[in-house]
Amino acid sequence: MPQLRKDPVTKRWVIILHEQAKSPADFQIPQTPRQSNKCPFCPGHEDMAPPEVMSYRAPDTLPNQPGWEVRVIPNKFPALQIEGDLDRTGIGVYDMMNGVGAHEVIIESPDHEAGFHNYSVEQIYRILRTYTDRYRDLRRDRRFRYILIFKNNGSAAGASLDHPHSQLIATPIIPKRAMEEVEGAKRYYYYKERCVFCDIIRQELSSGERIIHENEQFVAFAPFASRFPFETWIAPKDHKDSFGDIDNSEIEGLAGIMQATLQKLIKTLHNPPFNYVIHTSPCDEHCSDYFHWHIEIMPRLTKVAGFEWGSGFYINPVAPERAARFLINQE
Amino acid sequence: MPQLRKDPVTKRWVIILHEQAKSPADFQIPQTPRQSNKCPFCPGHEDMAPPEVMSYRAPDTLPNQPGWEVRVIPNKFPALQIEGDLDRTGIGVYDMMNGVGAHEVIIESPDHEAGFHNYSVEQIYRILRTYTDRYRDLRRDRRFRYILIFKNNGSAAGASLDHPHSQLIATPIIPKRAMEEVEGAKRYYYYKERCVFCDIIRQELSSGERIIHENEQFVAFAPFASRFPFETWIAPKDHKDSFGDIDNSEIEGLAGIMQATLQKLIKTLHNPPFNYVIHTSPCDEHCSDYFHWHIEIMPRLTKVAGFEWGSGFYINPVAPERAARFLINQE
Repeated sequence: MPQLRKDPVTKRWVIILHEQAKSPADFQIPQTPRQSNKCPFCPGHEDMAPPEVMSYRAPDTLPNQPGWEVRVIPNKFPALQIEGDLDRTGIGVYDMMNGVGAHEVIIESPDHEAGFHNYSVEQIYRILRTYTDRYRDLRRDRRFRYILIFKNNGSAAGASLDHPHSQLIATPIIPKRAMEEVEGAKRYYYYKERCVFCDIIRQELSSGERIIHENEQFVAFAPFASRFPFETWIAPKDHKDSFGDIDNSEIEGLAGIMQATLQKLIKTLHNPPFNYVIHTSPCDEHCSDYFHWHIEIMPRLTKVAGFEWGSGFYINPVAPERAARFLINQE
Repeated sequence: MPQLRKDPVTKRWVIILHEQAKSPADFQIPQTPRQSNKCPFCPGHEDMAPPEVMSYRAPDTLPNQPGWEVRVIPNKFPALQIEGDLDRTGIGVYDMMNGVGAHEVIIESPDHEAGFHNYSVEQIYRILRTYTDRYRDLRRDRRFRYILIFKNNGSAAGASLDHPHSQLIATPIIPKRAMEEVEGAKRYYYYKERCVFCDIIRQELSSGERIIHENEQFVAFAPFASRFPFETWIAPKDHKDSFGDIDNSEIEGLAGIMQATLQKLIKTLHNPPFNYVIHTSPCDEHCSDYFHWHIEIMPRLTKVAGFEWGSGFYINPVAPERAARFLINQE
């Protein structure tokens, strides 16, 4: 069973996997992703992965057979395990609990070569519908306090398989960075009685200098204090705290802006490695007044070095206004 | 002039460099470090870098000439600039100030091929003396609130030059992660009236299961909630909040344990990329009761992916007890 351990100074939680470490040789930096001829995510290879949790598939096809368009499976090497109790314990100054949680893989397309460079809006809609379906199902489990949905694209961004996929991890604690955002938004709300994200979006739309794309429901912009070159956030224009509460018309709008924004990034930066992470409110917190869900997209163009790790203080060689101009001029 | 910008939600500061971005082609991931035949840090090439701030050198040699053993120069491409006022301003919801600060490079040895794999204790002593000399000089400048000393070793850890070097950045704000540590230590102190780091060190020395090395003054251990495989912290056994206050006998002890610990890591992990960062108290905070300076060493064996960025919640495939055992058995 994986273990959750808390740093006693900063309250940062870490998942320790006890079983995977065999010898120091196993801890080398992984090389290029596995070859595609044995891809466990390709149609026809369904038996190489655990049985599916759900799928969007042609009406006359069977689970765990080809015919699917988006498919969700449990991660074969889960960071957290779905069965069991938390069993919180302490040893002296330290705190820990069992690594209970969900860790799922969303296989975004049957096509091994597909990706945001060529997804149709309909395919992105199906992927996002799958995210919300899984989100809503898992938040009913009272053991889980946060549901994190993210994508690692390219091996430099942490992807271990080429086949397009994203991941979902449901955790029994609220991760540190999510908590910081919620706390920061709460402080602002108590001071101003307004949502800080709504204020940011209003100011960005009014100045326009960091806007990358917008449609009726969403806006994509380069954040004022971008940590990384070409960092891009997508947020709903209307205030809503949880990604789990978006309706189908909003998912359509989100699919459109994700297609437009990611294609601009992929073209301008020549298919960069990237991560995106959906930032939403914790499952059991009532933060509907002050939190505002959004997606943070981070192209991985610069290496994060000791300075950043040691300080949480980032050096970004590209001003976000400039990044936005580059992206807008790219067609 | 670089600009410091604050994220309005999380209060994370970012340095934005306005001048370096030329075109999207400049933002590609850098390739292998530059070739050594034109190394600006090698003896005889002193004119390729800015004039030195200080050096340890043979008595009859001149500044900016060969004959040095450790040499400090201003960074040729500084993230922050030494001249000017902070000039704090706001635009709507956003806050910023001028990127005033110091950014120096400590060239650790005249030998291009040297490093912690073969440094003598005497050479490490000189490097650490240089760190403390620069620390003490810069903390007298009242504009600087924090002094960060760190090393990026290997291009995967963010080093852009092969020649062994470390860096120092003095900042006009307290970086987020430093502040979190100080605040966490303060909370513990108010609750227990003891230093949390002293309690950690006492517990580690008593259990012994995560100890990697110790001498009279220092202990090296794998932290209980290690974020990375083989993460290692070195801390003084006696309580002291600021790295800037260590004396020469302590520097000797530190040089010895750094040599022993880094050589174990380098041998066991086959010369891995790594970062280390000195965590010390802010220049102008009185935290002598509750903060405890230490060094965090992070071998870079795993890729940090979207999950970690989005959550501040790390997955570590190697239990620290196991990492400590591997390192101890390596001779």
